[in-house]
Amino acid sequence: MVAKMADYAGACHRAALRADPVGSNPPFALRAGTWPRAAHGSADFRRGLAYPTVIRSAIWSKIMSRFWSPVVHSLSPYVPGEQPKQDGIVKLNTNENPYPPSPRVLAAIASATDRLRLYPDPRASALRETIAAHYGVEPEEVFVGNGSDEVLAHTFQALLKHDAPLLFPDITYGFYPVYCGLYGIRYEEVPLDAAMSVQIADYRRPCSAILLPNPNAPTGIGLPREAIGRLVAEHPDQLVVIDEAYVDFGAESAVPLVAHHDNLLIVQTLSKSRALAGLRVGFAVGQRPLIEALERVKDSFNSYPLDCLAIAGAVAAIKDDAWFQETRQRIMANRQSLVRALSGLGFEVLPSVANFVFARHPSHRGADLAARLRQRGVLVRHFQKPRIEDFLRITVGTEEQCSRVIALLRGLI
Amino acid sequence: MVAKMADYAGACHRAALRADPVGSNPPFALRAGTWPRAAHGSADFRRGLAYPTVIRSAIWSKIMSRFWSPVVHSLSPYVPGEQPKQDGIVKLNTNENPYPPSPRVLAAIASATDRLRLYPDPRASALRETIAAHYGVEPEEVFVGNGSDEVLAHTFQALLKHDAPLLFPDITYGFYPVYCGLYGIRYEEVPLDAAMSVQIADYRRPCSAILLPNPNAPTGIGLPREAIGRLVAEHPDQLVVIDEAYVDFGAESAVPLVAHHDNLLIVQTLSKSRALAGLRVGFAVGQRPLIEALERVKDSFNSYPLDCLAIAGAVAAIKDDAWFQETRQRIMANRQSLVRALSGLGFEVLPSVANFVFARHPSHRGADLAARLRQRGVLVRHFQKPRIEDFLRITVGTEEQCSRVIALLRGLI
Repeated sequence: MVAKMADYAGACHRAALRADPVGSNPPFALRAGTWPRAAHGSADFRRGLAYPTVIRSAIWSKIMSRFWSPVVHSLSPYVPGEQPKQDGIVKLNTNENPYPPSPRVLAAIASATDRLRLYPDPRASALRETIAAHYGVEPEEVFVGNGSDEVLAHTFQALLKHDAPLLFPDITYGFYPVYCGLYGIRYEEVPLDAAMSVQIADYRRPCSAILLPNPNAPTGIGLPREAIGRLVAEHPDQLVVIDEAYVDFGAESAVPLVAHHDNLLIVQTLSKSRALAGLRVGFAVGQRPLIEALERVKDSFNSYPLDCLAIAGAVAAIKDDAWFQETRQRIMANRQSLVRALSGLGFEVLPSVANFVFARHPSHRGADLAARLRQRGVLVRHFQKPRIEDFLRITVGTEEQCSRVIALLRGLI
Repeated sequence: MVAKMADYAGACHRAALRADPVGSNPPFALRAGTWPRAAHGSADFRRGLAYPTVIRSAIWSKIMSRFWSPVVHSLSPYVPGEQPKQDGIVKLNTNENPYPPSPRVLAAIASATDRLRLYPDPRASALRETIAAHYGVEPEEVFVGNGSDEVLAHTFQALLKHDAPLLFPDITYGFYPVYCGLYGIRYEEVPLDAAMSVQIADYRRPCSAILLPNPNAPTGIGLPREAIGRLVAEHPDQLVVIDEAYVDFGAESAVPLVAHHDNLLIVQTLSKSRALAGLRVGFAVGQRPLIEALERVKDSFNSYPLDCLAIAGAVAAIKDDAWFQETRQRIMANRQSLVRALSGLGFEVLPSVANFVFARHPSHRGADLAARLRQRGVLVRHFQKPRIEDFLRITVGTEEQCSRVIALLRGLI
């Protein structure tokens, strides 16, 4: 059973060859007169089996085209966690916030709908000013994009393509090697230590830049700001990018270091701690020359990546700090309960400062547990990758959702 | 006076050197402790002068950074039409729809706000199915993106980067050469004929692909579907991309040809005829292998370019065909009146099938007229480019807006 290889570091070096994880069906059925569908997220949920199917096979080459740019043949796209269309699923697989966004976000969106016929502000100035005020930087030190994935994509193209390799951990966000494949960027993976932690001393090697998530994903383990400061100081001629997608759940942001280091770029998202995964807003903070590079690439790609509703909603979300504080505190409290309960069931749980936990059981395979939870209507994330194949990544949900997953696991182990 | 050179074909071969069009100010003022702002769209409106300022100068090199990827130094980003923040401006400069979107769009957006905490469907299946049903193709033959600019960007990267040059008209959408600069794509500009029309016979030359807007911008002149069919048939081994951003205002779409040609890709947008410039939705229609290339690049760039509100709003917009038909008919009627009035004032008006007209007066410079209209609160688009420097591109607005611009022009000439 091979599934979702593109999720993993190193994927961009592999052929785009994926098999049907169900294992029992032909790669795809060609209906007369139709092309097979790309099957991202379209696995038949009712079969109750494993993970969404992505099908690429030798037969797939029929779909390749002489019109493709050469790079397309070697791409191995990122496969995000499943977004089921059914109701009633307990969805703990993509680290969404279990609580809704601030009611002020909805009000702001409603009042922005009278501007839909007009192009949005291509600079998204209102949002950049709001983020700048909130984080104590200048608006010119803020870049915004269509989710932190787009911000990261522009970062790879604008700032990370050099002769020397980019460094990032071997166990980390699976999109990083995909970006490298898209832009032809050399990279080397630096292994996490035996405790699954980033050791900044391991990054003392020739490179053009360093990319670290803090806290790391899918481990959830964070580095203190002081360690990031040391890393940045040790590499004055290399750019250091810190992906802080999950920083608001107990880690220390490195944004205060930006004023002192011209080689530090921070990337954040409103998808997690602001509960706006559906609105697609991310941002970067760095000194002006770094932001200028991102703007140049963005303005050579798409003038208006943020629609007027996303800008309005994001501004309202940043401004409602009380809602933000309350919901993140609840999630951190739920995490504590979830970790305690998992430990009580015999799981080894890595020390998480994110809105998910990464845990394995000494006597159960991760793939089996994930599949059984799925059959019972609970989605968690499992990565078929060396070192972590026996782990489950479980998003911290509501109190009820956490209780549900614990109750099910109690029956499975 | 040099301004907005990045708007024009060939810009990607030029240095990113732009001067202040106002001409009287130093390139920028450095305040202690701050970096100069990128001045896109931030020209001081109260000065009542010319166009938004984009400042790049020798001094700007201070902002360049050793951390930039090499390509960034040579980028000359696209500069979109100004989006003034003041009220009371008659805005006929960016070809927005003067009428609001369908009320059903607003209802759909309102009902989608309860899903903001969740990631959107990365496939945007509901939207692709709706577009497919509307245009009589399969959902697998539809690609959607964050405005047609993003769809075009992915098209350039996925399908237009080859050894032989890409061909497009010398007078056309100014973003095309910018994309070429971003992705390192060779291109050649094919001159419009003396009547400012595309002659498909002029494209019989060695190339990897051909990109034509139909109707062309900023001329507004359209080609019949039969001509597109001939072009596609004449180049069976080259991809032909037709950018139909303005097709709904009286031109013939080539979508019905897609079934018969594996080398044809159509790009459209909801920004113009569906009055959703603020929502950022565009799409492409082509046979499955072309769409697969776009999906691979998109899934290596950003899993979720369309937020849940954009998906919901776009579905509703496509489905409300009555609203679409009524508003586009009104715009075409307004265009007829505008053309008649401009002709009556002595303007030469190119035969437009778009929601804008392109016109010049034999005894007035285009830049002067645009500046004078701007001083009087009416924005139109002017391009400082050979062959078209005396033209104004005037968006077809409401009856009242068209009357206003005519009344002002009557006083100016």
